[in-house]
Amino acid sequence: MSTLFEKHQDTLKSALNAIQTRDYWSPYSENPSPRAYGETANADGEAAFKAHLNGAFFLDMPGIVGEAGAEVSPYGIDLNVKYPLVDLDVLLPEMESARQAWRDQGADGRAAVCLEILERLNKRSFEIAYAVMHTSGQGFMMAFQAGGPHAQDRGLEAVAYGYSAMTHTPGAATWTKPQGKHDPLVLEKKFTTVGRGIGLVIGCSTFPTWNTYPGMFADLITGNPVIVKPHPAAILPAAISVQIAQDVLKEHGLPPHIVSLVIDEDAAKPGTAELAKRDEIKLIDFTGNTAFGDWLEQNCTQAQVYTEKAGVNTIVIDSTDDYKGMLRNLAFTLSLYSGQMCTTPQDIFVPKGGIETDAGHKSFDEVAADLGMAITKFLSDPERAAMVLGAIQADATAARVDGSNTLGTVVRESDVVEHPHFPNARMRSPLLMSIDAADEATYMQELFGPISFVVKADDTNHAIELARRAVKSHGAITMGCYSSSDAVLDQIEDAALDAGVALSCNLTGGIFVNQSAAYSDFHATGANPAANACLSDLAYVANRFRVVQSRRHPKG
Amino acid sequence: MSTLFEKHQDTLKSALNAIQTRDYWSPYSENPSPRAYGETANADGEAAFKAHLNGAFFLDMPGIVGEAGAEVSPYGIDLNVKYPLVDLDVLLPEMESARQAWRDQGADGRAAVCLEILERLNKRSFEIAYAVMHTSGQGFMMAFQAGGPHAQDRGLEAVAYGYSAMTHTPGAATWTKPQGKHDPLVLEKKFTTVGRGIGLVIGCSTFPTWNTYPGMFADLITGNPVIVKPHPAAILPAAISVQIAQDVLKEHGLPPHIVSLVIDEDAAKPGTAELAKRDEIKLIDFTGNTAFGDWLEQNCTQAQVYTEKAGVNTIVIDSTDDYKGMLRNLAFTLSLYSGQMCTTPQDIFVPKGGIETDAGHKSFDEVAADLGMAITKFLSDPERAAMVLGAIQADATAARVDGSNTLGTVVRESDVVEHPHFPNARMRSPLLMSIDAADEATYMQELFGPISFVVKADDTNHAIELARRAVKSHGAITMGCYSSSDAVLDQIEDAALDAGVALSCNLTGGIFVNQSAAYSDFHATGANPAANACLSDLAYVANRFRVVQSRRHPKG
Repeated sequence: MSTLFEKHQDTLKSALNAIQTRDYWSPYSENPSPRAYGETANADGEAAFKAHLNGAFFLDMPGIVGEAGAEVSPYGIDLNVKYPLVDLDVLLPEMESARQAWRDQGADGRAAVCLEILERLNKRSFEIAYAVMHTSGQGFMMAFQAGGPHAQDRGLEAVAYGYSAMTHTPGAATWTKPQGKHDPLVLEKKFTTVGRGIGLVIGCSTFPTWNTYPGMFADLITGNPVIVKPHPAAILPAAISVQIAQDVLKEHGLPPHIVSLVIDEDAAKPGTAELAKRDEIKLIDFTGNTAFGDWLEQNCTQAQVYTEKAGVNTIVIDSTDDYKGMLRNLAFTLSLYSGQMCTTPQDIFVPKGGIETDAGHKSFDEVAADLGMAITKFLSDPERAAMVLGAIQADATAARVDGSNTLGTVVRESDVVEHPHFPNARMRSPLLMSIDAADEATYMQELFGPISFVVKADDTNHAIELARRAVKSHGAITMGCYSSSDAVLDQIEDAALDAGVALSCNLTGGIFVNQSAAYSDFHATGANPAANACLSDLAYVANRFRVVQSRRHPKG
Repeated sequence: MSTLFEKHQDTLKSALNAIQTRDYWSPYSENPSPRAYGETANADGEAAFKAHLNGAFFLDMPGIVGEAGAEVSPYGIDLNVKYPLVDLDVLLPEMESARQAWRDQGADGRAAVCLEILERLNKRSFEIAYAVMHTSGQGFMMAFQAGGPHAQDRGLEAVAYGYSAMTHTPGAATWTKPQGKHDPLVLEKKFTTVGRGIGLVIGCSTFPTWNTYPGMFADLITGNPVIVKPHPAAILPAAISVQIAQDVLKEHGLPPHIVSLVIDEDAAKPGTAELAKRDEIKLIDFTGNTAFGDWLEQNCTQAQVYTEKAGVNTIVIDSTDDYKGMLRNLAFTLSLYSGQMCTTPQDIFVPKGGIETDAGHKSFDEVAADLGMAITKFLSDPERAAMVLGAIQADATAARVDGSNTLGTVVRESDVVEHPHFPNARMRSPLLMSIDAADEATYMQELFGPISFVVKADDTNHAIELARRAVKSHGAITMGCYSSSDAVLDQIEDAALDAGVALSCNLTGGIFVNQSAAYSDFHATGANPAANACLSDLAYVANRFRVVQSRRHPKG
């Protein structure tokens, strides 16, 4: 194993440095270019993706008893991939038995295997991108970046945090206690990190790798075999990832089922709750709806539970000295993946008296109308619109968009967009409405999908208080603000700190409030109801392992 | 605040170094000598302790509505101290409001205040020692060491871990992402650590400071106001500690109720469960019985819960090359504080065929009888016996000892010991019985107090398997073993690792299995049912705070 560690140790060292400096860094190119990934990478990846369709997907697990799977691409293609079904009463004991071999690799050995898995995931980024695209509905570029290198970054980040936490304690120490004139008391001590048990990572349909890798690699690096339980609508990207992990484990003489995939026989009757309650499951990572996340937190007390749930993300607009830049930035933010990101703003608070800008005073209605027009203008190129919007992952989301235009005063109607290459793609452009601040019941519920409100606040103070309340009561992963006043920025920063949400100020260029960079930006905080954890910090990894010590007097 | 940080930063730095090297270190002398603490320290401390008796204890908290308290010393003295009772509906909102001022101190400011509190606790070690002695029943030397400097060490250890975890993330960073030929994207980022809410530390009657300081200081350093809820039989040591903390907070312009004390109006109707369930309580530390610890874990899902519960500690004897040293060591171990330590061994597994020793082969019965005689010999000096045994904290424990001598074959009967200075002290010497391995139902339940079994195993393998099973099924904080074979030691080490319990091998000198040294030994592991956490590691602190970030483009 030491050769493999040597191969990857510079990358690990750089990742460890990055999470402490929090400057930009990544070992995985986010550019899907031939120069970065090879001349034939795109074609090979697409072919590999297509080769999975209409076939049986192989995974190496004990207890296989059947097959299932019924994914349909939001772009209108029937994937028809069948994945193995396992008997948990066979699989779980075998995974528990495999824990010792995984423990005995030590932190370095596990890090080496994790980094090798990540390198191979990176090499197969195109294949995974197509799988992410045709399950989540993301446009290709986003599927490549968020599903490939950025997801790998979040995986490596978790590895770095786990490694950092484990190596905080040395493997061995000599303890020498002076005894005055007598010989000192001396003990030799050994410290071994051991995993907690079996981890369970419950994936979501919109980010099947980005939201799965952190938990998966956090469990692995800290010594826990892990079950990936993908969303029934987005199995393929997870299955490819598990297969790659199993290949690496086998090649290094380890049981492949240290990483396993569990799916439901019938997606309509999911067994996730039952699995999550099993006593062997000691760690649970979940991304999805608030109701099930809360249920896991309250009922799976045998496990440490990490959840990312729903929220209401907000923007406060007080003023700006780059009105056009602000509108452009928000238009992209609201359009990206048709608002299906857990980081997309839903409520944009604007004072009823309007705002001061570099282009003069803008009334509340002007701000709302200009934002609507900026979205329409941004989406006027069909190729760009298709690439940025992607498809709507779930029927329910499309139905929600279609049925929401009576919730406020429509500023910009949502269109059923036609995809230039996939005639059956399920697409919707953003719906933008204005609404009065008093109508909290409407805009302070999460309306997942491309649905946003420009909310008429009394003034900036009122806007800030509403945003703070939205976060505290309903949770949020992002908060944005625009102001040309330092005093107002400080005031908003204080509200964000109090509410426990990440704040982005005056984004008018190539950074967007819904994007976060691994190793530098924390995704979610764990300090408000949207999530009880964060990707990634020490809290995300430190409870996934224990230190067991042994002490004896030195031989002598 | 920076002056205070400067005063303590060398101590903090040394503590940070100690938790990573895990060599011996302590800033607090464990020697209750005039040289270390001053010529009049003992007399002053005893006088200060006595001044608390038969009086009203002052604490500075909003919402005081009455007083209560009915402690009786296990040495037979009625303490008659009255402590303030508070209205939680007044106290908790005020504590929550105080959280912002505490947050704004930053990691350095909070560390400075914590270290100042610890330094003052240290200066008052004698006063606290008498308070610990006359509530827990510990002998004076142990009350001084475990209740004073060793408890302070565990508090400082938690401060060091919290500080280390918080400073893992920088306070600010510049993120610069290259954009090829274009200007890089640049963001200035701020990272602020914020506490989770209000912490609750539920103390126990046997170690009212040692088991309280870790949670109290872990909460404080990470930004959380903290309620200390002492055991009704051992309030005074906690109250003195809270008062000292409040003094330091006030002197530094902070709300004193950042550290508060809550007790029950009627000890027979404790309100701990109700308090622990309150939504404001986000962190709970508990030391005590398994039933209530399990209840907290399963019901207080609004909080992060850290528990230390009951267990069955074991010793495996395979062989020894220092028979007398082993017996002496175990005799002290079983006598210390009359077996009322959570680390005291209960089951000593010995092969039925006996063991090989430097004094020749010893049969099972000889080992048991020799251990019984070693205890009797060790306790033959009444002054030493009183100092080491201390008093029995609770009536229930004394009754358990008195009623347990039919559980096995008595090897050494427990005596009602007379204290040379406190005629009304409730004392018992260790009860030692032998028992067959088959009688698991008897010896694999925790029998808190000076009750131990020498268990007749088939052979060493069997002894190891029984010890492993005891830990896995019932939990344990310590495991000890004696063997002159390296292969057997390795085998036991593997079992301890698998069961997740700290192992001590071949202790025959001045180190005892039931003692652990802060900064070097982890107390409990969190990996078996005896505890879900450990004193202290990163897992113990990392979930007590969150990092909230803010980002904006640099001014240009």
